[in-house]
Amino acid sequence: MAKEGTAITEETEHMIEKNGIKEQESVLSAVDSKEMRAVVLTGFGGLNKLRVTKKAMPEPQEGEVKIRVKACGLNFLDLMVRQGNIDNPPKTPLVPGFECAGIVEAMGENTKGFEIGDRVMAFVNYNAWAEVVCTPLDFVYKIPDDMTFPEAAAFSMNFVAAYMMLFEVANLREGMSVLVHSAGGGVGQAVAQLCSTVPSITVFGTASSFKHEAIKTSVTHLFDRNVDYVQEVKKISPEGVDIVLDCLCGENTGKGLGLLKPLGTYILYGSSNMVTGETKSFFSFAKSWWQVEKVNPIKLFEENKVIAGFSLLNLLFKQGRASAVKTVMQKLISLYDQKKIRPLVDSLWALEEVKEAMQRIHDRGNIGKLILDVEKSPTPLMANDSTETSEAGEEEEEQEGDSDNKERTPFIP
Amino acid sequence: MAKEGTAITEETEHMIEKNGIKEQESVLSAVDSKEMRAVVLTGFGGLNKLRVTKKAMPEPQEGEVKIRVKACGLNFLDLMVRQGNIDNPPKTPLVPGFECAGIVEAMGENTKGFEIGDRVMAFVNYNAWAEVVCTPLDFVYKIPDDMTFPEAAAFSMNFVAAYMMLFEVANLREGMSVLVHSAGGGVGQAVAQLCSTVPSITVFGTASSFKHEAIKTSVTHLFDRNVDYVQEVKKISPEGVDIVLDCLCGENTGKGLGLLKPLGTYILYGSSNMVTGETKSFFSFAKSWWQVEKVNPIKLFEENKVIAGFSLLNLLFKQGRASAVKTVMQKLISLYDQKKIRPLVDSLWALEEVKEAMQRIHDRGNIGKLILDVEKSPTPLMANDSTETSEAGEEEEEQEGDSDNKERTPFIP
Repeated sequence: MAKEGTAITEETEHMIEKNGIKEQESVLSAVDSKEMRAVVLTGFGGLNKLRVTKKAMPEPQEGEVKIRVKACGLNFLDLMVRQGNIDNPPKTPLVPGFECAGIVEAMGENTKGFEIGDRVMAFVNYNAWAEVVCTPLDFVYKIPDDMTFPEAAAFSMNFVAAYMMLFEVANLREGMSVLVHSAGGGVGQAVAQLCSTVPSITVFGTASSFKHEAIKTSVTHLFDRNVDYVQEVKKISPEGVDIVLDCLCGENTGKGLGLLKPLGTYILYGSSNMVTGETKSFFSFAKSWWQVEKVNPIKLFEENKVIAGFSLLNLLFKQGRASAVKTVMQKLISLYDQKKIRPLVDSLWALEEVKEAMQRIHDRGNIGKLILDVEKSPTPLMANDSTETSEAGEEEEEQEGDSDNKERTPFIP
Repeated sequence: MAKEGTAITEETEHMIEKNGIKEQESVLSAVDSKEMRAVVLTGFGGLNKLRVTKKAMPEPQEGEVKIRVKACGLNFLDLMVRQGNIDNPPKTPLVPGFECAGIVEAMGENTKGFEIGDRVMAFVNYNAWAEVVCTPLDFVYKIPDDMTFPEAAAFSMNFVAAYMMLFEVANLREGMSVLVHSAGGGVGQAVAQLCSTVPSITVFGTASSFKHEAIKTSVTHLFDRNVDYVQEVKKISPEGVDIVLDCLCGENTGKGLGLLKPLGTYILYGSSNMVTGETKSFFSFAKSWWQVEKVNPIKLFEENKVIAGFSLLNLLFKQGRASAVKTVMQKLISLYDQKKIRPLVDSLWALEEVKEAMQRIHDRGNIGKLILDVEKSPTPLMANDSTETSEAGEEEEEQEGDSDNKERTPFIP
């Protein structure tokens, strides 16, 4: 299962284009260049649509911050973008990526609150997977001194989404129960950690069985992702759960609503089930729209239930709620400083390894977040490896219960 | 408009059945009787289906409290029950009414926590409109010493519903905005008062114009119930509101969802638009089910919106959430003790005047809650009248802005 996560494919060895930088030294010497390296999606489709190439160095406009990127977050959503499997996809070619961490290198006019050299994390409306990013001031946040760049790139989107869903859309309080799918993923682990900050929360999670040993301390009840989770939850809690967080969509919406206790909240925050293969799936966005069962408000009235949708990207980039997100980020950084939460990094990948990284998240091989490490050379390095001991093509399927996995057990205070 | 609210109809004068008590003294002497007076709905339909008649005195079962009723709440829902315009209507004849206040007269076995003589308010699954009620312990709450019985009967359902919608289903916080329909009604006034306990809440309300003078201090922006409230709200707040509380249903669901800001919550808590005439309307319950526009979860995802339904009766009587309601009641009584909230009583009516009271709520003539005062003789008495100065048939249409209306201005601390 994890094979694709670490195997350098033949294709990758040739994906660095003629103008690409092949040596890490060259990368570092590019700081003063007029060009930068970036991952480019040449068209919607499979992994072969991804390239690392040089692009013109962006310069900050008024109100923007220019960031020398150290690490970028890779999300399931990036797969859907690659397939064009989103509403109103932008035009290609484009540079994917919505979040990064790095160092402030310059500021546009009328840009207060940051200084050159500040360590920051940022949301970007595409273009994050590059050596340099410019993004509006409102989407940039200083990071704590003891937070590494990969941790910061793993922190922003997953924790903000998890926090807003649990505490703003739903109303998580003492004694409640939460069901989260993909409990081993970035959002799943953020949800589990945030639940641990509230007394007596029961977390039900689904995840591939091979992840269970690694994440079992973060989740109260773990089910294999292929079992009938509705039956499993009901065996333990016949009256259901208070909050269902669903990133799968499709038939899981009806299942999730059915599992809710009275006054419970179902939140749809993704539709990863729409991605079934490497290329754009039969279940395209337009089709999924019609296949999701619609909900009658009177049924919600009779059953005392709540259904919500949550899209952090729309909130930030279409709906102008950056200030609400900033407030949430301040709360999250406070929780981080109190050591109550800590982002879980699955693995670090060079820009040139983006295909392998995407394949790993597609195969749900990750435990925690996949990070593109901009300064990393194209050799796989697992999160807790102190040296480059991993080898290309290394099999990881036997990891269950071994010490390497234990090292990756999420930090739960 | 308010004419029906105070006019004793010819029919009423004859509605007291042969066995009924005609003199107030007789009512009071009935305390030790084996019988009691009650309002009976003989079949679903118009006002002519209501009778006051004698029924066998109920005795408390195990876990039940027997209450000598002093005052009962009349809700719009009671009209829908009368018309049979609810899901799975019970069999007739039945005694309507879901809430009352009075004095504990006896207790069934294994019923701890109350003593004979305690002043209480209670929820009842029908049967509230009677001289004596028995209801499970879990639905009975002691009332503060300075809360009158009519206030208590006006308190329970409206304030619990308003509180749970604002603070548990939605997540009302400083600076938010709320739209409430029927702002002059019992729930509307409870919503307005509870909003005033949170800093900087903007309340948009719709109400008949003749109520505006009386309730204007409780609501930030008032609109006539016949204007296009969507346009009016958008003139003041182009980006919409955070919470929409809808008791109208039908096309208002789509309008309400459309008015929501990102992360906003629409709550459907009634469907009073389904009641259009005295008898069961063309828009029956089954029809309304299909006429309400269904909601696509993916649209909620894209727009970052929340849709919820809230039915306090289902929560209490079908879904076993009495303990959650008890917790809310404790918070509400604390707010009452701090003089931050106070139920607003529109008018008091004898049991024999239930038709006129129902007509008044049907015509939306009330400002605050209509109360059936069990010990009252059938002469109309307005809430703030100290003596029985009102006369049957008195016209009230000229009340706008007069001192009587000012006396009924809701208490906002």
